[in-house]
Amino acid sequence: MTAPAAPRAGRAATALPAGRRRGRPGHDLSSVLAVAVGLFNERGYDGTSMRDLAARLGIAKSAIYHHVAGKEELLRLALDRALAGLSVVADRARALPAPAIERLEYLVRGSVEVLEAESPYVTLLLRVRGNTDVERAALDRRRGFDRFVAELVAEATRDGDIRPDADAVITARLLFGLVNSIVEWYRPDRGAGRASLADQVCAMAFDGLRARRR
Amino acid sequence: MTAPAAPRAGRAATALPAGRRRGRPGHDLSSVLAVAVGLFNERGYDGTSMRDLAARLGIAKSAIYHHVAGKEELLRLALDRALAGLSVVADRARALPAPAIERLEYLVRGSVEVLEAESPYVTLLLRVRGNTDVERAALDRRRGFDRFVAELVAEATRDGDIRPDADAVITARLLFGLVNSIVEWYRPDRGAGRASLADQVCAMAFDGLRARRR
Repeated sequence: MTAPAAPRAGRAATALPAGRRRGRPGHDLSSVLAVAVGLFNERGYDGTSMRDLAARLGIAKSAIYHHVAGKEELLRLALDRALAGLSVVADRARALPAPAIERLEYLVRGSVEVLEAESPYVTLLLRVRGNTDVERAALDRRRGFDRFVAELVAEATRDGDIRPDADAVITARLLFGLVNSIVEWYRPDRGAGRASLADQVCAMAFDGLRARRR
Repeated sequence: MTAPAAPRAGRAATALPAGRRRGRPGHDLSSVLAVAVGLFNERGYDGTSMRDLAARLGIAKSAIYHHVAGKEELLRLALDRALAGLSVVADRARALPAPAIERLEYLVRGSVEVLEAESPYVTLLLRVRGNTDVERAALDRRRGFDRFVAELVAEATRDGDIRPDADAVITARLLFGLVNSIVEWYRPDRGAGRASLADQVCAMAFDGLRARRR
């Protein structure tokens, strides 16, 4: 029996100090995490065993425990990574010295960019249903994010910057429903066409698809 | 042992010919289907057994086979119901003697209404990943629907009715990503606030959230 190594978080392989790369050559915590997240998204978290992960990584199950304490810790690290990206965007939006409508647009744009940069992690986050403590903690943080969106929508409506016929609660849900729906079809290699994906989302949500004629 | 009470799916029960109501009193095909769809959405299709369904219905497993040949037939019936609703809307949109932008708006509005009326069935449809012949057939029909959306978007763009900076493929995906995202939070009893949900979706997608100032 090998003692489980201390769990380590890290955004990406390149972000980890070299001294923290342990275990079998060719795998560090980041690459283990990336493969785990791929499997969780493919088969579901409950449907993925540490054995499946070891097989996919091509290493012994015991070797995974050099990197993490277990499956739940992989889930926590993966969800933290998605949530950390969204938190940075939310903090920046909060601090922006601008009207609520502009902070809202910043938040939408930034969230699309996080989704593009971290799509497997955000996909996993969006599928969480709250079956474990780790999932419930992630859901709590998501709800905090959703409340912030709803507050911005309400403030922008009071400012007269959002159409008065828009219901604030429904609008907040539709706006992030739109953003989150991107994980259903987004592929990192595909590209978003002429304008950036974030631009297209903001153009549709804030100004609408309809061409304006003068 | 008390006999199970008669759960009935309101809308569909009345739509089935009386001759198809077989099996134990208190259950007809519609109510069996409604309960099955609820379980499929809760536990996943693969995670639901006919035994689970019998337990939820409070009847013997053999009694379910009075209504359907098996689990896959329940899935097919459920997916057909969602797809039938969407097909009717698509056919009407196609036949509408109006510019593409209006046919597109009709399609979006009608799809939101189908989603509201049949939310458990549409939820199930949107989760289908193509693991069986029944699922693949449903996915094929969904793809046909998506192609129709993309054609309408492209035609409306050529007509100059959609902003020229909008990419047609991305726009079609965003538009129905927005519509489909509603299943994530929609509850039939909740109501959509001041304007109808379909109105709010169309207002945001076609005219944008931003208030117009003259």
